[in-house]
Amino acid sequence: MQKTGRSPLVADWNTLDRVFIRPEDERCRKTLVKYMEQILFGLHDFLNRHVGVTEEISLVRLAEEYTDTLINKDPQKKLADVIKDIINEIAPRAVNVASPYFIGHMTSAIPFFMVHLKTITAALNQNVIKLETSKVLSILEKQVLAKIHRMIYRFDESFYAQHVQNVDTSLGAFTTGGTTANLTALWVARNKSFPPKKDFKSIETNGIVHAFRAHNLERGVVLVSRRGHFSLKKAGGILGLGSNNIIPMALDSNGTIDLACLKDKIARLRSDPGTRIIAVVGIAGATETGKIDPLPELAQICETNGIHFHVDAAWGGPVLLSETYRHLLEGIERADSVTIDCHKQFYMPMTSGMVYFKDPRAMDNIVYHASYVNRPGSVDLGIKTLEGSREANSLILDSALKIMGSRGYGLMIDHGIETAAEFAEMIKKRRFFQLVTSPCLNILTYRLVPPDIQQKLEAAGEKEKIKLEAIVDEINIRLQRIQRENGKSFVSRTKLPVNADTSRESVVLRCVIMNPMTTPEILNEILDEQEMIFNTKIKAGIG
Amino acid sequence: MQKTGRSPLVADWNTLDRVFIRPEDERCRKTLVKYMEQILFGLHDFLNRHVGVTEEISLVRLAEEYTDTLINKDPQKKLADVIKDIINEIAPRAVNVASPYFIGHMTSAIPFFMVHLKTITAALNQNVIKLETSKVLSILEKQVLAKIHRMIYRFDESFYAQHVQNVDTSLGAFTTGGTTANLTALWVARNKSFPPKKDFKSIETNGIVHAFRAHNLERGVVLVSRRGHFSLKKAGGILGLGSNNIIPMALDSNGTIDLACLKDKIARLRSDPGTRIIAVVGIAGATETGKIDPLPELAQICETNGIHFHVDAAWGGPVLLSETYRHLLEGIERADSVTIDCHKQFYMPMTSGMVYFKDPRAMDNIVYHASYVNRPGSVDLGIKTLEGSREANSLILDSALKIMGSRGYGLMIDHGIETAAEFAEMIKKRRFFQLVTSPCLNILTYRLVPPDIQQKLEAAGEKEKIKLEAIVDEINIRLQRIQRENGKSFVSRTKLPVNADTSRESVVLRCVIMNPMTTPEILNEILDEQEMIFNTKIKAGIG
Repeated sequence: MQKTGRSPLVADWNTLDRVFIRPEDERCRKTLVKYMEQILFGLHDFLNRHVGVTEEISLVRLAEEYTDTLINKDPQKKLADVIKDIINEIAPRAVNVASPYFIGHMTSAIPFFMVHLKTITAALNQNVIKLETSKVLSILEKQVLAKIHRMIYRFDESFYAQHVQNVDTSLGAFTTGGTTANLTALWVARNKSFPPKKDFKSIETNGIVHAFRAHNLERGVVLVSRRGHFSLKKAGGILGLGSNNIIPMALDSNGTIDLACLKDKIARLRSDPGTRIIAVVGIAGATETGKIDPLPELAQICETNGIHFHVDAAWGGPVLLSETYRHLLEGIERADSVTIDCHKQFYMPMTSGMVYFKDPRAMDNIVYHASYVNRPGSVDLGIKTLEGSREANSLILDSALKIMGSRGYGLMIDHGIETAAEFAEMIKKRRFFQLVTSPCLNILTYRLVPPDIQQKLEAAGEKEKIKLEAIVDEINIRLQRIQRENGKSFVSRTKLPVNADTSRESVVLRCVIMNPMTTPEILNEILDEQEMIFNTKIKAGIG
Repeated sequence: MQKTGRSPLVADWNTLDRVFIRPEDERCRKTLVKYMEQILFGLHDFLNRHVGVTEEISLVRLAEEYTDTLINKDPQKKLADVIKDIINEIAPRAVNVASPYFIGHMTSAIPFFMVHLKTITAALNQNVIKLETSKVLSILEKQVLAKIHRMIYRFDESFYAQHVQNVDTSLGAFTTGGTTANLTALWVARNKSFPPKKDFKSIETNGIVHAFRAHNLERGVVLVSRRGHFSLKKAGGILGLGSNNIIPMALDSNGTIDLACLKDKIARLRSDPGTRIIAVVGIAGATETGKIDPLPELAQICETNGIHFHVDAAWGGPVLLSETYRHLLEGIERADSVTIDCHKQFYMPMTSGMVYFKDPRAMDNIVYHASYVNRPGSVDLGIKTLEGSREANSLILDSALKIMGSRGYGLMIDHGIETAAEFAEMIKKRRFFQLVTSPCLNILTYRLVPPDIQQKLEAAGEKEKIKLEAIVDEINIRLQRIQRENGKSFVSRTKLPVNADTSRESVVLRCVIMNPMTTPEILNEILDEQEMIFNTKIKAGIG
């Protein structure tokens, strides 16, 4: 924030004074706004460009430019120059996730007012770990948690009147994302699976070995379809259950959890006295396919067997705001816990997630106090969260809900689901493409299979098939890479079983349609580009 | 973002179009900047006010205003009105952590350029979980990690040349705070404590029960002084070790870990074949007192015994940037892992922390892959982090280091330490106050003890002492509360042993001097106010 000049930059008290500048007089205010103008105008080009790195520079060469590892002693740059550098050097090498041609991941465009709301949150810099550093923001957070809890569970007015500002109960928590939300849910599920016994207080206090011994157990498992997000396996590892004990369940022909297999597995596990089922996880919007597990049936199975039912709705949760499609999530209100991400379909900036519990006492299983902060019986939200210090993301969500209304969100959700359905039809009609997973929400997968190979595949024997499939895999890997490097559009890729034989996974292209600016015309262009890439850059080299 | 008008707000495509507004033409750009101006100017009053809630409104009454739990269907407010509401209704009821009179917690003023940098990060909305949604930001993050690693460990140039952009090794990770940084460090320490054996792959995969059985163990423990942050106990609970197995060690007369006790404890634990010591934690800036454990001695003990040495420098880490005081952290370069928070003494906005590992292979112990993201051998940073999706906080830290230089940070660190020392002298000179813990860094604790009670305490017998101490506790609880409610200044309170007898903890006032605008004059005013509060509002009611 130094004045322009030729003199070298120095760190002194005078500079510090200016660095801690706040809009105290008209001149300072103007300076701060001028910088914001630079940021907003400067990022204009970035946000209007196509996807990815238009600049032709390989990753290796790019990495070579970021190798200096010494921290400069004196200031190197003024804020204005830092902003300029970011606009001219960082932004062009970043990924334009806001482009309507960027349909490859769950990170997408955000309404620009979100940037303003994030700016406010940063300027206030409240820390909702405790009341003393957040005051009204802790109270607002409890209200927002109740709003979303009500969206999920639809308890009656009196329930929310009782709990919305209750300092002893918790309807949920803001987390830093779906990963820690899932971890929190399984943490609670793990702890409540081991009620106190003589000489055993809790798994939290005494540890797993002691808990298992007190309960005569050998292992605790979590069951989830093989489409479960990898954060669930990670949670198993972190929580000491072992990632191997997050057991992947087979899929049925819909690509969702096979209920017969699940029931059978539960019966077998329950007949083993050494095993306890800590949770069953239903997915409401699988990361790779967008599929939603049959939640009412899962709820029923869990209720019958007395198992904690967690729904990972990190992706699909906000579909509850769509009057047209909320029925897809029916059964979620019977979940013991639910994960929903804010930086996904609530269109908030990175990084924010949430976890909810049907029972307002469930989070008592993870309570921690400290005398300098988070005293029992206080509004200190940090008492029952995995994370410590946290920014006031609830202010952003609350404001967004006021600006958009549930109908505004509903429009975006509907657009994604309906555009994805249209996209699926387009893919089916094209000779070069094969739809692999049809969209239930706004995610689908497909692959490019040249018509001649398609024909051969139909007639091929087992050995020949394997050879051909390998070729198709290679085509799609190269296709995705070339398209990404072209920088005009972006789809991602993963591996999924393409046929009834689920033992073999094929490379597929994965699309997530969440940007409301993504139109069928754009999707058509993307398919055109892929055919063109295949015909001009891949075809000649195959076989 | 609707035009001003009397018509009701509706959610339709036209609105959506405007909501996803980006600075595409001159008019839109101006609108976006106008909103930023409202934000920056509007928060002006807030940031220049005294601490806390000037508005006289009790917590209970405040909570009553935040009880509506229905999400509105149609938009309720335009962005401009939301901003206005935040400025007029939320900010005045938030806590002005930026005030130089707010010296109670580790959340404080941030240089205003940080708000601009956060705005940029939000506008770019990159997700550094993987290269495909972040590109250069993942590469930049690796560089920033190397810079801070070098600040801590000071390996030679060739070490950093080898690792700075190495896709197979990791020098550390950005986390969402010190809590998850500590959790990550202990997660790594836990996993590496159980090398593979026949029929046992890893604790991560197989779980604790299996791991303990394979290694013939009954429990795993972590040793840390009783001043350890509560996130360490929480990590013990989450990781399945049991929070009881995070064993608090006695303090010596310096208020840091008692080395003789520690050595003795280690010897006893090692003689028990069923127990493994997973880590010893040294504190570099205790949350309550700012004290730094004797790091070289701890390092030596850990090296001798082959124990993972973690240093929780969430608070103190940036002291390494001060040429005058970095010697206080000597020994940190021998730690196996180190936690440093960004939103504490790196003066970044909420929420950002970091964890570092001396061994670039240590994080291999917590690796997770998923085929749609985070492929092995890629720059995908999400492979080895507790968190999933993450914003590009490294851009903020990197920019701040360029703007301030290590000297700029050093000035702020020096100011805090030296002002705290001065404050301690002021306290000692005053008749009404007793310094409880002298400042090693920029944190100190003290309490108000009226001179007549001080005299009585000196002469009192055991029973009388207990009665008097209870009175002093009550005085300080009320003092802190009244001062907070007055809203002019803020100190926090906690409980610490005041005398040699550590079995009894007394209520103390706790100050954290990190705002460079906090001067000795301000501190003097705060003590004056406290004496005044005691004399006018407390004195009459005691005894």
